[in-house]
Amino acid sequence: MELEPVTGLPEVRPGDDIAELVAERVDLEPGDVLTVASTIVSKAEGRLADLEDYPVSGRAQEIADRIEEIAGEEKDPRFAQAVLDESAELLIDVPFLLAETRFGHICPNAGIDRSNVPDHDILLLPRKPSESAERIRAGLEERGYEDVPVIVTDTCGRPFRHGQTGVAIGWAGMPASRDWRGEEDRDGHELGVTVQSVVDELAAAANLVTGEGAGGVPAVVVRDWEFGDHGGSDELFRAVENDLVREALRDWEFDG
Amino acid sequence: MELEPVTGLPEVRPGDDIAELVAERVDLEPGDVLTVASTIVSKAEGRLADLEDYPVSGRAQEIADRIEEIAGEEKDPRFAQAVLDESAELLIDVPFLLAETRFGHICPNAGIDRSNVPDHDILLLPRKPSESAERIRAGLEERGYEDVPVIVTDTCGRPFRHGQTGVAIGWAGMPASRDWRGEEDRDGHELGVTVQSVVDELAAAANLVTGEGAGGVPAVVVRDWEFGDHGGSDELFRAVENDLVREALRDWEFDG
Repeated sequence: MELEPVTGLPEVRPGDDIAELVAERVDLEPGDVLTVASTIVSKAEGRLADLEDYPVSGRAQEIADRIEEIAGEEKDPRFAQAVLDESAELLIDVPFLLAETRFGHICPNAGIDRSNVPDHDILLLPRKPSESAERIRAGLEERGYEDVPVIVTDTCGRPFRHGQTGVAIGWAGMPASRDWRGEEDRDGHELGVTVQSVVDELAAAANLVTGEGAGGVPAVVVRDWEFGDHGGSDELFRAVENDLVREALRDWEFDG
Repeated sequence: MELEPVTGLPEVRPGDDIAELVAERVDLEPGDVLTVASTIVSKAEGRLADLEDYPVSGRAQEIADRIEEIAGEEKDPRFAQAVLDESAELLIDVPFLLAETRFGHICPNAGIDRSNVPDHDILLLPRKPSESAERIRAGLEERGYEDVPVIVTDTCGRPFRHGQTGVAIGWAGMPASRDWRGEEDRDGHELGVTVQSVVDELAAAANLVTGEGAGGVPAVVVRDWEFGDHGGSDELFRAVENDLVREALRDWEFDG
């Protein structure tokens, strides 16, 4: 398996066609996987915003006040409002905002970014990242690059473990997971491992070569990797009734 | 960046020298990273066990009974005992066991495996995986392969997201994370992203080529990847006081 960064991409602006920008810079083979950082997908889709666009509700003001009181960190209530607008559910409100986005991804601040946002205050995640992935995939196909799955990636922290890793937030042209259920180990015992989230692993691998910051490269081609002859699953975000950690967070209140 | 599976490894047995087994099969360059599945590290270290080795305590019996009652799934109390023996803390006891191992890794069943365990009932995780990584690294060095970081990997599910991914449980010869604190984005703003867990991302990438089951390859060489000119951090497992999800789980009880 090989990962090749797509270099030389310009600063992406609203209305830009990411498939075109990528296709001009790399030759893709059938079976290659293209990973694209949500940052440039959001920029192409015009998901830039300014804090003054967010009139502050009572709930947003309350959250900002509580964070300021408890965490001692000044929080702009307009930013809290933006997070609320982007969220289906708030899992934690203090000392930081952990939200489920409207498309099911759980991350701090609903994934709203304040870095690398030229001429605006904030950058929202794509509205429907799997549809974004599908559009990019279709755009590649129009340019003669058929059978290239596309993954829209983000970086995100995790419970229990330090540091952020690359994760998938949308995908098209391949299943999200290899489903090993029913397959056997070397001794013929059915495998305990059930589902391997390959889109998240591909996003993590890509993040090793994209980097953050000024030298960041927002797209990567994965070569010579095969999904293989396995069942597939498209579940990526856990259903509420299947996520004990989420249940625990709902029952819990920060008392720090 | 390139990932090459180390093929042709034999079934690993207690006392085997993993550095030797790997060095016989691949040519390593300085800067290559070797990932090794904890399964073979455990086997080499004799971490195989039988359930009859675990006299059942009252606590283990209680856990097995509660899981049987609530989840309707029969649980061998000796297995619960093995998990208790391997754990520093139990975060969830029903409907499944989520434990912190003695070396700080949080995972279901303290990472105890029932697949791919020839002639025994269970396979425990290495006692101190970073020391295992260091031993393998030193073994490679003895054979002329200098400057090869080693990562011991496992696969693990996650809160909020479906499916398992490869994660690091031990490492040697490199920091666990790139620490971006203080670095700047393209516009000169300080980055919000702080720490990137590259050992976990390398483990995830490796897991894309190792696979599970009968065709599984337990070691992978990562080529042409550079840590780069960044700060480093060796924190991988969150401290309790810094992990709100863990706090929430402590306060919570399953009422399913």
